[in-house]
Amino acid sequence: MSLINKQWHLVSRPSGEASPDNFRLVEAPVPELQDGQLLVRHHYLSVDPYMRGRMNEGKSYAAAQPLNEVMQGGTVGEVAASKSDAYRVGDRVVGMGGWQQYQVVDGAQRGLLRKVDAAQVPLAAYLGAVGMPGVTAWVGLNTIIAPKAGETVVVSAASGAVGSVVGQLAKARGCRAVGLAGGPEKCRAVTEEFGFDACIDYRAHPDLKSLSAALKAACPDGIDGYFENVGGLILDAVLLRANAFARIALCGMIAGYDGAPIPMAAPQLLLVNRIKLQGFIVTEHMQHWPAALQELGTLVATGKLKYRESIAQGIEAAPEAFIGMLKGRNFGKQLVKLV
Amino acid sequence: MSLINKQWHLVSRPSGEASPDNFRLVEAPVPELQDGQLLVRHHYLSVDPYMRGRMNEGKSYAAAQPLNEVMQGGTVGEVAASKSDAYRVGDRVVGMGGWQQYQVVDGAQRGLLRKVDAAQVPLAAYLGAVGMPGVTAWVGLNTIIAPKAGETVVVSAASGAVGSVVGQLAKARGCRAVGLAGGPEKCRAVTEEFGFDACIDYRAHPDLKSLSAALKAACPDGIDGYFENVGGLILDAVLLRANAFARIALCGMIAGYDGAPIPMAAPQLLLVNRIKLQGFIVTEHMQHWPAALQELGTLVATGKLKYRESIAQGIEAAPEAFIGMLKGRNFGKQLVKLV
Repeated sequence: MSLINKQWHLVSRPSGEASPDNFRLVEAPVPELQDGQLLVRHHYLSVDPYMRGRMNEGKSYAAAQPLNEVMQGGTVGEVAASKSDAYRVGDRVVGMGGWQQYQVVDGAQRGLLRKVDAAQVPLAAYLGAVGMPGVTAWVGLNTIIAPKAGETVVVSAASGAVGSVVGQLAKARGCRAVGLAGGPEKCRAVTEEFGFDACIDYRAHPDLKSLSAALKAACPDGIDGYFENVGGLILDAVLLRANAFARIALCGMIAGYDGAPIPMAAPQLLLVNRIKLQGFIVTEHMQHWPAALQELGTLVATGKLKYRESIAQGIEAAPEAFIGMLKGRNFGKQLVKLV
Repeated sequence: MSLINKQWHLVSRPSGEASPDNFRLVEAPVPELQDGQLLVRHHYLSVDPYMRGRMNEGKSYAAAQPLNEVMQGGTVGEVAASKSDAYRVGDRVVGMGGWQQYQVVDGAQRGLLRKVDAAQVPLAAYLGAVGMPGVTAWVGLNTIIAPKAGETVVVSAASGAVGSVVGQLAKARGCRAVGLAGGPEKCRAVTEEFGFDACIDYRAHPDLKSLSAALKAACPDGIDGYFENVGGLILDAVLLRANAFARIALCGMIAGYDGAPIPMAAPQLLLVNRIKLQGFIVTEHMQHWPAALQELGTLVATGKLKYRESIAQGIEAAPEAFIGMLKGRNFGKQLVKLV
């Protein structure tokens, strides 16, 4: 019996917003396993903001996603068949399997798969709080912002997979944590579930003056650290409230992903306040992953780190889940459940 | 006989460009020396870009210059009279005496004056290459850009008191040094006198496309470090040519000092290329001054560090020299000679 593997290919590049037309669902037979190979059946696949950048041709912070190939991305699943001594059927694994139901992996090649314990931490969390988004939060907060107890740390997209972890880690380090999120429901979760001190609904503050005033109210001692996922107006408003020697970890600028670049209104504030701003990509900080995963895994297993997930059902839903996530329709980590 | 001390006061704040009307020349008698005091006769006073920021009210990177008081600024001179055991008549001293001919100083108060050796290094150089501008270059280059041999370092205002030192230090560290300066005469000095590998006349490239193309030609391996004195279009163009992991030392943004802030066109490039950008003020890095002054003094004394000076004559010329410097009319360190 030959298994059929449904997979999403990128077939065209968006000129503005990503659209379902950019993707095509393809059915391919799962090839016979060769010696040393194993077959992973994906339980969840991850859709993430960084994928939008990779859909463009040319220079971005990652190589472009090739056309007419499987959309690349993080996956968790179980070993469904194995001709590798290193893996047994039933092993839970995290990998970069992409937008497809199955993946054949060479068991000897290092770095492609990581076995995980799904007893203490739910499997899906390895794509979120105990995965790339969680480590992203950890690295940006600890290596760039490096907050001291008593400082104020602000994070945009605070209800998201990265932002929610940033604020909780900042709180654990004795900081005041202030989030920005879209809509009252998300803001309520940011304070009530994730324990931030305050959350600003940026949709209620559509201009710089209003948003800046809201930040002033939420950050009476100014802003010492800012974890940026959004860019645009929010970055401008934060700069107006940043203290001397503030640190900005530039993780994402989702506000500008679909269109023209959004200028920074007043870059001289970086000089006036002697701010350090640093862009980073978590995969270039592999030395921190073990410590980060250790801490994040323990926090999730002990219930001290909360997270939310939006789960779309079935491989067919992947493009829609991805596009909705770019528009902020998700709540927490956006996943696609395949099994 | 009572000495008359001519001094410039700031009497109003500019709304756009600084103008001579903002200053008033005042004559005040030099007070009698009390025990422990000394009288410094200024030989040169310094006019610097940072003073424009201090003329504004409100938050800048230094406290505002008070109205109806002597314009503050760096000075070099000699001790003309002394009732302090710590100073003798004829001692050469560097201080912050401001825009005036004389200053009375309490000899016991630390940090106000620094005795210098005017035999090896010309006195005026202590306001330039072996003073605040030189140390500014040293700190930004070594602590923020931290270039490795073989990297490309770009500096704007490259013929200026700070920029010319940045490029020469970068060359000494094995880097390719590329300057930006205004006009062919300055550009020629940047390469021929200061030894940069290339210099771009930004006036010949008034738009982003042209300037970016000139940078591409001058920096065939891209830009690894950028020392920013200007901002605006030049910063935008540099960002287009910056390599991954580039470092930007934000020292000044003179292009925007007189008017509205100049936006940064494409801040997402900071993320795409994982750039570190850091604003700094040299007076907040006092721990580096001794090492910097030591190196810069030796380089000047041995003729290895070149510099240019524009010297205006007489205390009356100070406002005009200052305003001309803001417009780029000076060439190298702008000084006012009083003696």
